Amino acid sequence: MVTTESTAPSTAPTPLSATNFDPASFDFNAYLTAQRQQVETALKQSIEVVYPEQIYEAMRYSLLAGGKRLRPILCLATCELAGGNPALAMPTACALEMVHTMSLIHDDLPSMDNDDYRRGRLTNHKVYGEDVANLAGDALLAYAFEFIAAHTPNVPAERVLQVIQRLGRAVGAAGLVGGQIVDLASEGQSDVTLETLNFIHMHKTAALLEVSVVSGALLAGASEAALTHLTRYAQNIGLAFQIVDDVLDITSTQAELGKSIGKDEAAQKATYPSLLGLEASQQRAEQLIQTAKAELADFGEARQPLLALADYITARTH
Amino acid sequence: MVTTESTAPSTAPTPLSATNFDPASFDFNAYLTAQRQQVETALKQSIEVVYPEQIYEAMRYSLLAGGKRLRPILCLATCELAGGNPALAMPTACALEMVHTMSLIHDDLPSMDNDDYRRGRLTNHKVYGEDVANLAGDALLAYAFEFIAAHTPNVPAERVLQVIQRLGRAVGAAGLVGGQIVDLASEGQSDVTLETLNFIHMHKTAALLEVSVVSGALLAGASEAALTHLTRYAQNIGLAFQIVDDVLDITSTQAELGKSIGKDEAAQKATYPSLLGLEASQQRAEQLIQTAKAELADFGEARQPLLALADYITARTH
Repeated sequence: MVTTESTAPSTAPTPLSATNFDPASFDFNAYLTAQRQQVETALKQSIEVVYPEQIYEAMRYSLLAGGKRLRPILCLATCELAGGNPALAMPTACALEMVHTMSLIHDDLPSMDNDDYRRGRLTNHKVYGEDVANLAGDALLAYAFEFIAAHTPNVPAERVLQVIQRLGRAVGAAGLVGGQIVDLASEGQSDVTLETLNFIHMHKTAALLEVSVVSGALLAGASEAALTHLTRYAQNIGLAFQIVDDVLDITSTQAELGKSIGKDEAAQKATYPSLLGLEASQQRAEQLIQTAKAELADFGEARQPLLALADYITARTH
Repeated sequence: MVTTESTAPSTAPTPLSATNFDPASFDFNAYLTAQRQQVETALKQSIEVVYPEQIYEAMRYSLLAGGKRLRPILCLATCELAGGNPALAMPTACALEMVHTMSLIHDDLPSMDNDDYRRGRLTNHKVYGEDVANLAGDALLAYAFEFIAAHTPNVPAERVLQVIQRLGRAVGAAGLVGGQIVDLASEGQSDVTLETLNFIHMHKTAALLEVSVVSGALLAGASEAALTHLTRYAQNIGLAFQIVDDVLDITSTQAELGKSIGKDEAAQKATYPSLLGLEASQQRAEQLIQTAKAELADFGEARQPLLALADYITARTH
């Protein structure tokens, strides 16, 4: 059992009921549904529509467009795993989804991937125009940091600063943006190596999943040993997540995926299937998930949600 | 004298020498030059060029393109005014310039103001392309928060969180972005009221100047009374700054300003000169500066840099 430092401030909010699971009868579908509902409620409450209404509506349009809410759920799960009250992690969980949504809005812009559909709806700029969409992304990014700083009063401030520092790093040039830059530079290149492809996805996708996993545990005061295991878990599921994404771009339908499909091939993008083949890609994803799950061995029964979340990533069809 | 809580952690870095001015012989030009040099040095050191080089080069291209560095200098000045060591405020000062630079990069994009020149050089997207410019802005915004959180260890973490919260608010929908949204909606409208114009500029320009002024004092542990005076000072110089900007768009040359001029009239933008006339606008800016300076009455001789900075704003020609 990896030891975790307990956080139990006397003013802590009531624990989120749905997360107090019984390991013997753990029902992942019920868990996922309950967690997702709590995240949806918190996200809805996070942004009020005031003057000038258009910007708040544009932010809400993409933030509340559904989606798996995987990043917030991972954050809440590791907070609880590390002995923390997941309610303390909810502002950070919401911020992770704000940052993820910003990256989707900006990525869909005509000057980037030029996508018309996302999560089954028109993309932000198709509804609000490019200028407003760009600003809605900026506003979501800035608000994410404000939201964590303003709404995490029952956690030692040093821990909150660590979360902010890691989130900033995960989004910026050393994370998501760095991955996108290499992705853009690789488009149309016929000689993209597996090493480059790994760099792209470790930064474009895995970095944000990593901070999602680590931030929940950090807020709960997890030990260094626990953080190391969780970081490796996150990196492995992050890469697996992207491989599955590449596979789904080939094998799924637009209706299932809710966004344009076949775009990778059309853009001559290097993907895991194009480098390794479809079957070997699926096997690689499966291996990564097994490695991720093995990192959780020391956490005992409390690891069940994270085990199931890892499986969920490879089993998903959208 | 407004009382300020002193901060003197034993591990504090060496004070910045140039800011230890003698009130009797205060030389504003020397002060401004020295402060600007320290800010330039800190900004240069803030971003290292590593793989993938292009994104770090794009960030540095705009961040190190000169400029008045007014926001960082205001932050350092109020930190010292409130009895703090300005070295403690330098990471925040740099972050303010990163955020300001992000707003310029995104504002210059073809889908926004579509500007080719900024600070006398080609705009970021003219050099690096729209996709990279957009990502460079995102990366600068995320890095600003990371930079404050990572590099302000000698200030109580609660104060640092307050700075992050206020900076996020100043940039997002309740600040800069909100001002830009109303600005975009007002373009080409012939019935823009002075109230709307004030809203635009209190958010688009004054909000970031306000957090520049307030954050330095916050880091130094300034009293509520001091923060209130400094907030009013900042709001008044912020609005004056924008009025002067509007005036300069008419009276200056492109060579002096370093960016495209006459754009407001071409875009049929409501400006203070178009609503009030040129002379009345200049008078209004002068009044606001006097009001700003009056807010500093209780700070004694230490207020000299802020008095001179207020004058500098209305006297500038670029």
